[in-house]
Amino acid sequence: MSYTAAVEEMAFVLERVAGLAEAREAGAAGALDADDTRAILSEAGRFAEDVLAPLNRVGDAHHAELREDGVVAAPGWRKAYAAWVEAGWSSLTGEEEWGGHALPMALQVAATDIWNQANAAFALNPILTVGAVEALQAHASDALKAIYLPKLVSGAWTGTMNLTEPQAGSDLAGIRTRAEPEGDHYRLFGQKIFISYGDHDLTDNIVHLVLARLPDAPAGTRGISLFLVPKYLVEADGSLGARNDVACVGVERKLGLHASPTCTMAFGAKGEGAIGYLVGVPHAGLRAMFTMMNNARVQVGMQGAAVAERATQQALAYAAERRQGHAGEVRDAPIILHPDVRRMLLTMKALTQAARAICYACAVAIDRGRPGMADAAFWKARADLLTPIAKAFATEVGIEVANLGIQVHGGMGYVEETGAAQHLRDARVFAIYEGTNGIQAIDLVRRKITLQDGAVLAAYLDELREVAAAARGTNAIRLTDVAARLDAAVGAVDAAAARIRHMLAEGHTERVLAAATPFLRAFAVTAGAAYLCKAAVQDEAASAEPRAALARLFSGELLSPMPIMLDAALEGGEEVLAAPLS
Amino acid sequence: MSYTAAVEEMAFVLERVAGLAEAREAGAAGALDADDTRAILSEAGRFAEDVLAPLNRVGDAHHAELREDGVVAAPGWRKAYAAWVEAGWSSLTGEEEWGGHALPMALQVAATDIWNQANAAFALNPILTVGAVEALQAHASDALKAIYLPKLVSGAWTGTMNLTEPQAGSDLAGIRTRAEPEGDHYRLFGQKIFISYGDHDLTDNIVHLVLARLPDAPAGTRGISLFLVPKYLVEADGSLGARNDVACVGVERKLGLHASPTCTMAFGAKGEGAIGYLVGVPHAGLRAMFTMMNNARVQVGMQGAAVAERATQQALAYAAERRQGHAGEVRDAPIILHPDVRRMLLTMKALTQAARAICYACAVAIDRGRPGMADAAFWKARADLLTPIAKAFATEVGIEVANLGIQVHGGMGYVEETGAAQHLRDARVFAIYEGTNGIQAIDLVRRKITLQDGAVLAAYLDELREVAAAARGTNAIRLTDVAARLDAAVGAVDAAAARIRHMLAEGHTERVLAAATPFLRAFAVTAGAAYLCKAAVQDEAASAEPRAALARLFSGELLSPMPIMLDAALEGGEEVLAAPLS
Repeated sequence: MSYTAAVEEMAFVLERVAGLAEAREAGAAGALDADDTRAILSEAGRFAEDVLAPLNRVGDAHHAELREDGVVAAPGWRKAYAAWVEAGWSSLTGEEEWGGHALPMALQVAATDIWNQANAAFALNPILTVGAVEALQAHASDALKAIYLPKLVSGAWTGTMNLTEPQAGSDLAGIRTRAEPEGDHYRLFGQKIFISYGDHDLTDNIVHLVLARLPDAPAGTRGISLFLVPKYLVEADGSLGARNDVACVGVERKLGLHASPTCTMAFGAKGEGAIGYLVGVPHAGLRAMFTMMNNARVQVGMQGAAVAERATQQALAYAAERRQGHAGEVRDAPIILHPDVRRMLLTMKALTQAARAICYACAVAIDRGRPGMADAAFWKARADLLTPIAKAFATEVGIEVANLGIQVHGGMGYVEETGAAQHLRDARVFAIYEGTNGIQAIDLVRRKITLQDGAVLAAYLDELREVAAAARGTNAIRLTDVAARLDAAVGAVDAAAARIRHMLAEGHTERVLAAATPFLRAFAVTAGAAYLCKAAVQDEAASAEPRAALARLFSGELLSPMPIMLDAALEGGEEVLAAPLS
Repeated sequence: MSYTAAVEEMAFVLERVAGLAEAREAGAAGALDADDTRAILSEAGRFAEDVLAPLNRVGDAHHAELREDGVVAAPGWRKAYAAWVEAGWSSLTGEEEWGGHALPMALQVAATDIWNQANAAFALNPILTVGAVEALQAHASDALKAIYLPKLVSGAWTGTMNLTEPQAGSDLAGIRTRAEPEGDHYRLFGQKIFISYGDHDLTDNIVHLVLARLPDAPAGTRGISLFLVPKYLVEADGSLGARNDVACVGVERKLGLHASPTCTMAFGAKGEGAIGYLVGVPHAGLRAMFTMMNNARVQVGMQGAAVAERATQQALAYAAERRQGHAGEVRDAPIILHPDVRRMLLTMKALTQAARAICYACAVAIDRGRPGMADAAFWKARADLLTPIAKAFATEVGIEVANLGIQVHGGMGYVEETGAAQHLRDARVFAIYEGTNGIQAIDLVRRKITLQDGAVLAAYLDELREVAAAARGTNAIRLTDVAARLDAAVGAVDAAAARIRHMLAEGHTERVLAAATPFLRAFAVTAGAAYLCKAAVQDEAASAEPRAALARLFSGELLSPMPIMLDAALEGGEEVLAAPLS
């Protein structure tokens, strides 16, 4: 179960494949130069290897536990979190005014990759805190910012997202938690479920961002406001005051991510109401929360690719050691020599690298889309387009790769002590939280490929075609069919998107929704193949170790069937709606 | 978590799709008429619903536990097993001489389907016992038969398969357990791992079938003999005597199937040696064990399809109840109305039914291939061909469908109390045990599609083509493209198989092995599509509720991309072998 952060590979993908180098030229990388990227990721890698990775199994075995006075972290976790904060890892992206380093989101996502490779249950907490920081930076009053942002940016306190209620999951219109005005603050009453890190003892305060309704709120999603509710109230001098009327009243027993407490949070259960402060303007809470959600989505996608990376490393190590049977001429061969095992391992690598590149590219687009950047609107739209793909595809990859990792281990994969099964159990939730993958697919077909009448999509597909052209431009025979398959797939995605826009215009929304998931898959596999191809093209140019094999494998079995699959899926929409189900 | 055995559907598939009706005409269904099938499955269904299904979560939560004097079953399990034996469910297929009903394997497999739908951890035990009965019936001496078979057939005792050792998993050539002759018996010394139900307190004796080496045994797989080692020795009058020197010394903590103890078995740990009796002739143990393994493989495939059925039922029930958002015009709609949820549910149904039909068809072929049947050699070869497909594809389906089932549940799917996650955890091992799915794929490409120079495969593919022709013959427009896709896929499998045989003849074995898994998948999806099509054809003929929708969906998204995928996989073999892996 040894783990090594593959820093060179990550830095290469970030700079050269996902486009951080170009973003830097456009001024969208802050003060980060290419050497910084490598240096920071190396440091992060060491911390992850030394401190976080050894706690991964510990957290799985011990769980976070709800006791009388709150949730207690697994053994060793308090110390690890303190060390992580001490080393400054919480402050990468926060604004300088609040003590942050204002580094690009792309770097944050690469760091998220590393934390999650080492310990996904640990790494979820910072993702939520970074999201809370972003939401508060964008929407909170100066007074709230001054009190809460320094503590959140430093990691002294952590942030949570309180959205879901029993009757309001994917559809937040049903939210019932209410906020009653009282002077400069509000008192909140209600219950939230599935709140990750809703309570813990890693820090001495927790800052909840909570969706709730004001008394005069209109029904539906346009009547939801965002509130900041601290676990402990904060005095004017910044010291902690009374315990607020908010508490964790239950922790779910989950398939995985055992060390990440999934809390049922009661607001106002004592009758006082939880004191909260309005963030942004009344009734506009959902939009403010989506600032946070969107960036959290690419980070959740990253979780999927990261656990895939860890599972791949573990399977590779096992396959290099475990001996069984003979392979070709080799007797008592390490199973890594068996063709069927090789194919599983190569598939794991290809899927992981494709998913990672998509997540990194999405993060780079987020950076380039910030207000004030050149072509900010173009890049903001690009980020919007890639977010559902990054989230849904990379989390599917997390599951698929972890599943293959178990298979590589044979019988040992089914035994918990090996750790291979934990990756599948942990990764399984990524496809569900932060908007289920079905929600992502719907977002893609309804809102993203239709952006600017399809121009946003068209620009992206042109970029993928350029990758194919560049592959042909190398004159490398091994990239010839990669380029051809990529062109064919891009064409198919393009045609399918046009057909979808037409169907939407004609009012056949339900038929489109029935094909949303296969469309997302086909699009993502196409994008992933393009990034693998782009990496291989750069290898050719540098005469370096060729990444062509992964591009070839991925474009063969995974990409080349996509056009036909996509056609069938679009044809089949009617069927999905009409077929008897009982 | 309610569960209902879908008896009508199972009986229909067994009789009309998998061919039990035809087998009956050929005399291969024993005394079983079609009404019997339905009646027996109904009875089994009731037992499964009332007794086994309620214990499924209990077993998951409590595990089977190793105590000082052996393994103790989960609460309620002893009583359930006793009731199951009392009702006669253990004796379906055993020979009449030993108290069995000599009913067809096809019925046994359908019963296995039901037991596993209700409670997969419970159902594994009888699969092993049925296997032991088959091995002893075929290979044991009359004396051994007379002592052990009545008890095993009745279920009073259970059987186990002791193959794996730490260094000998997929490759049994490395087996080291040794058997020293002593008069009419042997004393065994060694350790076996991963022994399902190696110990338990459900019965007062356990009959281990153990692979071991005689002192004069040649190295490799031709030096392995099969022994019967009882937990308690049996006196001449049939009463239980002394405890044998065999014991469970450890139970694995596994991802799933918690109530099924996976034991490390020590033979001869006390120094006496475990007393065992030779089954069959010396050094021919592996072949004798394969008698048992082969039929166990179709049953394990059945486990996959059965858990898929249970997961589908549970997801359907949840989706019919859980309300969220609006679907078309319906506000606060049950999520079963959402197109993306429908597509998951329909995919689950289609995969499950395809996998079930393949397993049933394999079982029917086993029945028709028994010595003395008409065209026994033809059907035996058919069973040999279908066994790896049934095992590998249906177990993959178990994982895929259980995974989708979690997704349908959204956040609730990740919470253990819902039970959706258990199905994935339970199903995961089916792809590993009884020969990993990689081993199945290798078996298919190396030994099965080459049987009789490909004639066995050709006959089967002709049958699939006849299904396509029958679909066209209905003149139903909705089956037109199903038939066309089926023809195309059969053609692709045919061509790929020819290419594989050619590559093998040319000595490119490793390249073939690199494409074995995709070939198996393509073949299985083609066969599954054919069975769904066959079911739909019969609906057309009967003007009954059309199963066409599932056939259309399956043949569209799943089947139609297969020819291209298969081509790419065969092209990619070289790549898999050569690609750098580290």
